[in-house]
Amino acid sequence: MAQGVKAFGWAARDTSGVLSPYEFTTRPVGERDVKFKVLYCGICHSDLHIIRNDWGFTQYPVVPGHEIVGEVTEVGSKVQKVKIGSKVGVGGLVGSCRQCDQCSNNLESYCPQPQLTFGGFANVMVVDEDYLIRWPENFPLDRGAPLLCSGITTYSPLRYYGLDKPGQHIGVVGLGGLGHVAVKFAKAFGAKVTVISSSPNKKKEAIESLGADAFLVSRNQEELQAGASTLDGIIDTVSASHPIQPLLGLLKPHGKLVVVGAADKFELPVFPLVSGRKMVGGSMTGGIKETQEMVDFAAKHNVLPEVEFVPIDYVNTAMERLEKGDVKYRFVIEVAKTLKVG
Amino acid sequence: MAQGVKAFGWAARDTSGVLSPYEFTTRPVGERDVKFKVLYCGICHSDLHIIRNDWGFTQYPVVPGHEIVGEVTEVGSKVQKVKIGSKVGVGGLVGSCRQCDQCSNNLESYCPQPQLTFGGFANVMVVDEDYLIRWPENFPLDRGAPLLCSGITTYSPLRYYGLDKPGQHIGVVGLGGLGHVAVKFAKAFGAKVTVISSSPNKKKEAIESLGADAFLVSRNQEELQAGASTLDGIIDTVSASHPIQPLLGLLKPHGKLVVVGAADKFELPVFPLVSGRKMVGGSMTGGIKETQEMVDFAAKHNVLPEVEFVPIDYVNTAMERLEKGDVKYRFVIEVAKTLKVG
Repeated sequence: MAQGVKAFGWAARDTSGVLSPYEFTTRPVGERDVKFKVLYCGICHSDLHIIRNDWGFTQYPVVPGHEIVGEVTEVGSKVQKVKIGSKVGVGGLVGSCRQCDQCSNNLESYCPQPQLTFGGFANVMVVDEDYLIRWPENFPLDRGAPLLCSGITTYSPLRYYGLDKPGQHIGVVGLGGLGHVAVKFAKAFGAKVTVISSSPNKKKEAIESLGADAFLVSRNQEELQAGASTLDGIIDTVSASHPIQPLLGLLKPHGKLVVVGAADKFELPVFPLVSGRKMVGGSMTGGIKETQEMVDFAAKHNVLPEVEFVPIDYVNTAMERLEKGDVKYRFVIEVAKTLKVG
Repeated sequence: MAQGVKAFGWAARDTSGVLSPYEFTTRPVGERDVKFKVLYCGICHSDLHIIRNDWGFTQYPVVPGHEIVGEVTEVGSKVQKVKIGSKVGVGGLVGSCRQCDQCSNNLESYCPQPQLTFGGFANVMVVDEDYLIRWPENFPLDRGAPLLCSGITTYSPLRYYGLDKPGQHIGVVGLGGLGHVAVKFAKAFGAKVTVISSSPNKKKEAIESLGADAFLVSRNQEELQAGASTLDGIIDTVSASHPIQPLLGLLKPHGKLVVVGAADKFELPVFPLVSGRKMVGGSMTGGIKETQEMVDFAAKHNVLPEVEFVPIDYVNTAMERLEKGDVKYRFVIEVAKTLKVG
């Protein structure tokens, strides 16, 4: 196999519905490139969409994985950001046009020509240093890996929509890979946090393990009424379609409902928007500068995802469990420990 | 009739569908009250909703009118804001709780206990000075009257949502009483303005009379495509339900669609929100401080609504024409000139 790389990837499904194996090759190390040994990689829900081509742009064969941390093994001649032995991370983006308004404003994730990251489920990666995150000293690489997607995807909207002020009251809808990190970041910003979930049985864990201050069952009319006009903002991480009118009712005037899940569409009632000057906004992963800031903030405030470590050969089972929501709260593949390079 | 007041108001419809006459009495002038002679009053679309009880809270008999300008004739002993002879205005709000977070932050229009204004279609008004607007020197009272509702309702969202920066490109959907003033404020802020309308025949007037820079027919796919990702923000003034997906497509990344019309609900696609970090927000009339700021800004930048003056006994016909959209762009009643006090 080229360059000693062994990847755990997916080829297009064959007729029996079984995924086919294939070879994965990294590119040569250019003068501004960094090569690193992948130590850990989180499994994001979008990896599931990618391997199934749910979004229509998957090019098989594909190696998923974009919550990647590792240790630098080789640097190009002009690399300044890191050196051999540095701990590094790569999130959802490994390239962009570098010329548009978005790129000029450190908002590469909104560049119309983004180069999305693949390849975390492999033992080695080569990336342009401009898209590399320096990993903070003494901050766990293993549990930290999911920050590179689920972390920045919740940190970025809290910052952009001004929901990062101490003393605010923030709601988090859904308690999966994104939601549980949103709770932790909101707490780290100094907010009171209410988890909003359709599952009453998540209450104990939300409060006792994740540090939420309150829990609200989204179908309980009494709880919704008691919570009316109490929230400054809501981070909605649920991908399935769901009614947003109750969520708008929980917002104070000028409150903000921010959608980071991949729901298809909502029915948006206009009256609460106009009468309370409320808004519904969206957000996705952040730019490289903000991702660095997020990791540094997480290290300072000890924001770490809750994870279940799995070996690389468990990944298909992990994907099946992820689909059923059977994970607390993020799978992280122990790539270096379990991927045998042939 | 008490206190020499003659009002032109509506009582509940009798069985024949004809509006009944009634007497209107202002309150005595308290120590912080100001009494003024009504000179002009605009007719807002919400007056139509009020006289028909479309919103369910009309208490008959009712005197509509909340775009009111006049001249002070009497002041209470503790009034400091104005004196006899001062020119003043009253917008949509004549009272609020004065204790809530909204009132404390000059956002009285979002107070949960607002006291809405009625009584502009009458020759005299008494109002607490705290809810009075000082009219700028040498600024026309007659054409200026509609600023007190349509003006502040478009100025406030441009300011709140950060759509008041020179060089921005702002879209205005709908070219009625609100929309045409939104065009003028956006131009005064230094924006490039594109009017978005379903009526191609409004193009000439939008550009030549109102000063818009461009015009886009909302059902023309080619024009929508050419305008994709060009707008920083949109003020949507249309009350009828309409698709917002095309409007979201016109926004740049991080663009803002602000709804100020009274549409019922929208179908909100999530993908453009998330992938472009776009938002849909609402806004209604502003607080007293901002209304004063708006009138002062309008005077400085010569922002004046386009109006058709009508006598008070034309008001029922004006209401019928307003309902059909047959007005460019706002009716203003010449109250003092045409209302005979018995």
